Amino acid sequence: MHEHIAAVPLDKAYRLLNHGPTILVSSRHAGVQNVMAAAWACALDFDPPKLTVVLDKNVKTRALVENSGVFVIQVPTVAQIRLTSLVGSVSLVDDPHKLEHCAVQLFEMPGHDLPFVEGCSAWLACKLIPEPHNQQTYDLFIGEVVGAWADTRVFSEGHWHFETADPTLRSLHYIAGGHYYAIGQALDVDESNL
Amino acid sequence: MHEHIAAVPLDKAYRLLNHGPTILVSSRHAGVQNVMAAAWACALDFDPPKLTVVLDKNVKTRALVENSGVFVIQVPTVAQIRLTSLVGSVSLVDDPHKLEHCAVQLFEMPGHDLPFVEGCSAWLACKLIPEPHNQQTYDLFIGEVVGAWADTRVFSEGHWHFETADPTLRSLHYIAGGHYYAIGQALDVDESNL
Repeated sequence: MHEHIAAVPLDKAYRLLNHGPTILVSSRHAGVQNVMAAAWACALDFDPPKLTVVLDKNVKTRALVENSGVFVIQVPTVAQIRLTSLVGSVSLVDDPHKLEHCAVQLFEMPGHDLPFVEGCSAWLACKLIPEPHNQQTYDLFIGEVVGAWADTRVFSEGHWHFETADPTLRSLHYIAGGHYYAIGQALDVDESNL
Repeated sequence: MHEHIAAVPLDKAYRLLNHGPTILVSSRHAGVQNVMAAAWACALDFDPPKLTVVLDKNVKTRALVENSGVFVIQVPTVAQIRLTSLVGSVSLVDDPHKLEHCAVQLFEMPGHDLPFVEGCSAWLACKLIPEPHNQQTYDLFIGEVVGAWADTRVFSEGHWHFETADPTLRSLHYIAGGHYYAIGQALDVDESNL
């Protein structure tokens, strides 16, 4: 495993998505692999951790996920903003060399036959929970998180440390038309004293 | 309507949630109204706009939404961090005067029999699309957005303006244990020149 990557306990995995970052979906089937960007992914449950992600009928990733039954949701960083926009704009349908042209580097995690994107801050390996009605009617896919990892320079001991980490490790939050926000200032409420 | 509140065209409504803010859900049925906080809400479609929200079986809001078939998703601000934590911690089941004790002020929007929370930056009036299997199995509710509004001091002409608005109008992004992040710096990619 990479030097800065550490496993995240599954009961803390929801925290990797709780703040609503734009994510990358990666998948592989029968020798074809792809990476796409998506703003519409969301935690769904704590234990076992589950999440939802919207995969439009015109994206190549959808068939890869349906056919392999597995996928990775990962959290790209400010340093990856151009890569994120690129994989969200270029389709593997139009460009069979998309990943190369988008400068996406992939790596493997032991025990998971899945393509993981280098340079992200967090990775969630997911097993598709087939729900044909949701998939067909709403393009809505549900995954159970079966493995989670984070870059310890920005997430450790169950918490993000955006406030002290290098700003290029912050998460991206997409609006539209090439316009993003980075995650910002930390704010705390003493919940024992409300 | 309030001075700073303007309607958002429905085809731009997804942008109010696209950056993954923590939201407040409000609802009303048979004279009972409630407001709760949730991190697990997400855009689902553009046109007509739809969204998902997770409503646990132990929250009072769930019955109000199921019985009335309508609800509001609204985006609280940094100025409302304590209110957000409070309505996420106190249950109407335990405290019938929850809204008063949480200092929640509600207002009405013409044409919508729904309670809207004062001081938020955006509001999405939703009609429940009943999906009993999702609701029962995953606590997952789907709504069609039938009305959208935003505070023009921070969202106008289809775009958030966090970078120029008062910082207290920024969105909140919850992690866990009273720890939030505000939305941060604006970042742009020229998508015509990737």
